[in-house]
Amino acid sequence: MFAGPLQELIDELARLPGIGPKSAQRVAFYLLKVPPADAKRLAHSIVEVKDKVRLCRLCFNVSDQELCEYCRDSRRDASLICVVQEPPDIVALERTREYRGLYHVLQGAISPIEGIGPEELRTAELLERLKPAPHAPPVIEVILATNPNIEGEATAMYLSRLLSPLGIIVTRLASGLPVGGDLEYADEVTLGRALEGRRRVTG
Amino acid sequence: MFAGPLQELIDELARLPGIGPKSAQRVAFYLLKVPPADAKRLAHSIVEVKDKVRLCRLCFNVSDQELCEYCRDSRRDASLICVVQEPPDIVALERTREYRGLYHVLQGAISPIEGIGPEELRTAELLERLKPAPHAPPVIEVILATNPNIEGEATAMYLSRLLSPLGIIVTRLASGLPVGGDLEYADEVTLGRALEGRRRVTG
Repeated sequence: MFAGPLQELIDELARLPGIGPKSAQRVAFYLLKVPPADAKRLAHSIVEVKDKVRLCRLCFNVSDQELCEYCRDSRRDASLICVVQEPPDIVALERTREYRGLYHVLQGAISPIEGIGPEELRTAELLERLKPAPHAPPVIEVILATNPNIEGEATAMYLSRLLSPLGIIVTRLASGLPVGGDLEYADEVTLGRALEGRRRVTG
Repeated sequence: MFAGPLQELIDELARLPGIGPKSAQRVAFYLLKVPPADAKRLAHSIVEVKDKVRLCRLCFNVSDQELCEYCRDSRRDASLICVVQEPPDIVALERTREYRGLYHVLQGAISPIEGIGPEELRTAELLERLKPAPHAPPVIEVILATNPNIEGEATAMYLSRLLSPLGIIVTRLASGLPVGGDLEYADEVTLGRALEGRRRVTG
């Protein structure tokens, strides 16, 4: 529809997730108008990410080095491993400032519909990390922080069965009411979980 | 939050129109996963657009040549010029398959709020095109196809005053009910225009 290179860019942009044809056209025309340096910086960033960002050898978080920032940090508690589905989950957990252990990124969740089984995830590598090693402290607890949906729950269930014979404490993040939420608007499953996980109040 | 190059890409993507931080993160992780050739093709497209796409010397449509495809096409009726705000408007008009004249892209509309006056638009160049030239057919009609909103109407009003002394027929696209629409849901301004522009039905 447009001059060759412009239509090619629109087509490339429309392939990105969450960007429809209208949005792709808008972005392409925007790029056409910005100073060349700005557009080239974006293009350069894309190339840089492909060249430089890889997965941490130990935990499979994204990293620009062989080991990610958490695995490199000797001040973190290596006896705790928190298992998440994707790297952005780590960012969410770090924001709480409550966790000081290490991570393990599965790179997805078990989903029979999408044909993703445990062997597509980094489960073998997790088991490998849990093996006692001569010069490393033993892992005492594994926190299963997969998403509270069907795939995440299935993955947590699978992992808890896999890990329980190892004599490691396996925990799961609490489900319940979101803080700041309104009881009236809570869905019945969340409310059921909140009831089930109720805790004694002292004071 | 993420490894250097990844965060840089997320920041660059979040600067694009219509792409928020969440969406930028999603696109960045998607690019991290696609084959390197796919990501590099997108980066290359961005650079290509900046290098190769320019504005048509005559009508200011986007083009990868000095003259755009419409201005180059000798089969089109050069006595008709349709004035639009932006290049995508041409695509919309071409889809009707009803128009065979040339175009003129203003590159915007008059908007006092945004500080866009007639001198920011390609109005001087339009006047230049309308001057009688020895080896070209005279322009008989100018169709004002600016958007049916305040800015577009103001621009059409301004241009009609500018062009009327030139002895050229100046027309405006009809406003009225969208085809396939529902009378009940038409806004009062559109319905008012539809009444005002009513046409005799014969048959």
